[in-house]
Amino acid sequence: MTKMCEYLDGSAKNGAVSAGSRCLVVVGGVQGLRALCADSWDFSTYELVICGDSGQDVARTLGINPDVYIGDFDSSPRPAGQTEFADGRTRSPETLAAVPITTPSDAVPGDGVEVIVLPVAKEVTDSEAAVDLAYSRGYRHIDVIGGLGGRLDHTLGNLGILAKYAHTPARLRWIDGYNMVSLVGPGTHTVPRNDYHYFGLIPFDGDVQGLTLAGTRYLVEDFTLVRGSTRGVSNEITAQCATVSFTSGRLLMASSRDLQISGQ
Amino acid sequence: MTKMCEYLDGSAKNGAVSAGSRCLVVVGGVQGLRALCADSWDFSTYELVICGDSGQDVARTLGINPDVYIGDFDSSPRPAGQTEFADGRTRSPETLAAVPITTPSDAVPGDGVEVIVLPVAKEVTDSEAAVDLAYSRGYRHIDVIGGLGGRLDHTLGNLGILAKYAHTPARLRWIDGYNMVSLVGPGTHTVPRNDYHYFGLIPFDGDVQGLTLAGTRYLVEDFTLVRGSTRGVSNEITAQCATVSFTSGRLLMASSRDLQISGQ
Repeated sequence: MTKMCEYLDGSAKNGAVSAGSRCLVVVGGVQGLRALCADSWDFSTYELVICGDSGQDVARTLGINPDVYIGDFDSSPRPAGQTEFADGRTRSPETLAAVPITTPSDAVPGDGVEVIVLPVAKEVTDSEAAVDLAYSRGYRHIDVIGGLGGRLDHTLGNLGILAKYAHTPARLRWIDGYNMVSLVGPGTHTVPRNDYHYFGLIPFDGDVQGLTLAGTRYLVEDFTLVRGSTRGVSNEITAQCATVSFTSGRLLMASSRDLQISGQ
Repeated sequence: MTKMCEYLDGSAKNGAVSAGSRCLVVVGGVQGLRALCADSWDFSTYELVICGDSGQDVARTLGINPDVYIGDFDSSPRPAGQTEFADGRTRSPETLAAVPITTPSDAVPGDGVEVIVLPVAKEVTDSEAAVDLAYSRGYRHIDVIGGLGGRLDHTLGNLGILAKYAHTPARLRWIDGYNMVSLVGPGTHTVPRNDYHYFGLIPFDGDVQGLTLAGTRYLVEDFTLVRGSTRGVSNEITAQCATVSFTSGRLLMASSRDLQISGQ
């Protein structure tokens, strides 16, 4: 097993990161990718783009050029670039030769692209490693594309990463064509109206108390939202911004929409 | 709002249900549907098939003839059949006329097919209503196809239905092309090897204690599986059956596999 922090090199490597700087993490298996392509995302607002393993295919589809590729590359070819191994055997020619490099023919990483190769047997998923890397380099606004559909263990694991970062200064969101999800604690939160029709509020691990909503179709005031209740789903943001405030508990805020899942 | 039980008529209507009788519920938005079609499911083993709203499209793809259609039919046309309204205005010609019937051209419900129309504004989702109907008619082996991908509020709501039935005699599973999921409490559970490669164990709402596994690639004995840990994912069933036993907590057991999510 590799320790979680071995591939985390701190923010010094890339210089200081300013408070508002944003990092995009792209991972594999994005549901609703075509719809996501049609949305009005401006990917140029991200200072750093990190690709987790097969997220490289997603990045290509979205027209994004990653700065860092990270993963064990058991589900996609390892791109060419400045390769480092995160298992302590870094830069050994024998070790480098053991993992074949296959640059996808339609992707030519430029100079300065980093490739961080994780061992297959490790304590975290490639997705978690990618988020950890973003955080370790100083980013506090981190959006992750992917990881909300397909295998349920992955989906629930990724919601667990939201919980892991809930106690840090990071603002972390997971995004795909169906959902844009964040996890928040007590306080007041504003959510701009966006391309997703519904706005659902789901207690994460206990009841949410003192919930008051503004700017939404269905309003409540000082309300207790019980875990397991579907009372908070299928709301809508009707103003420019919704305001969500509550006094205790943790809340998944999910902007969602219906698309037709195809039968792959 | 309609009371949850208004559409539940008990098992008397269809006669007594024997202990081993199985009911299939089909709901909309099934991820990995093509893979599911290629699996070795024998749908003739189900005594009753209930379709929740747009699950009728899924049933057609799978070659299944439903016995009951239930839903508010806001996301699919209402099939022709012996229609009942579950809001107390049942069988009023005016009310019947208010909801247009559209029989899909390639689906001709036979005699005896029931159509239960729920109001749009209700306390439960169409999926939950369909499971409740199966249970109310006496079925204790209930498989649900769909409902694990797409909108995250739906996915988490459906896992909540697993929790709702965890305290009943029902054995409830949710199934799609990626996952086959059930929720179990303390005791010993056997899971046959199946078409899904991975076998993941995910604590549902707290730590799982005294966990012992047999017939799996990775074995533990009297182990505490902490909620939020991914330690239990990506295991595999290596024997004919896996045996999972534990003394406290609740466990999602997910047989899963990787498929390529297409970019619809």
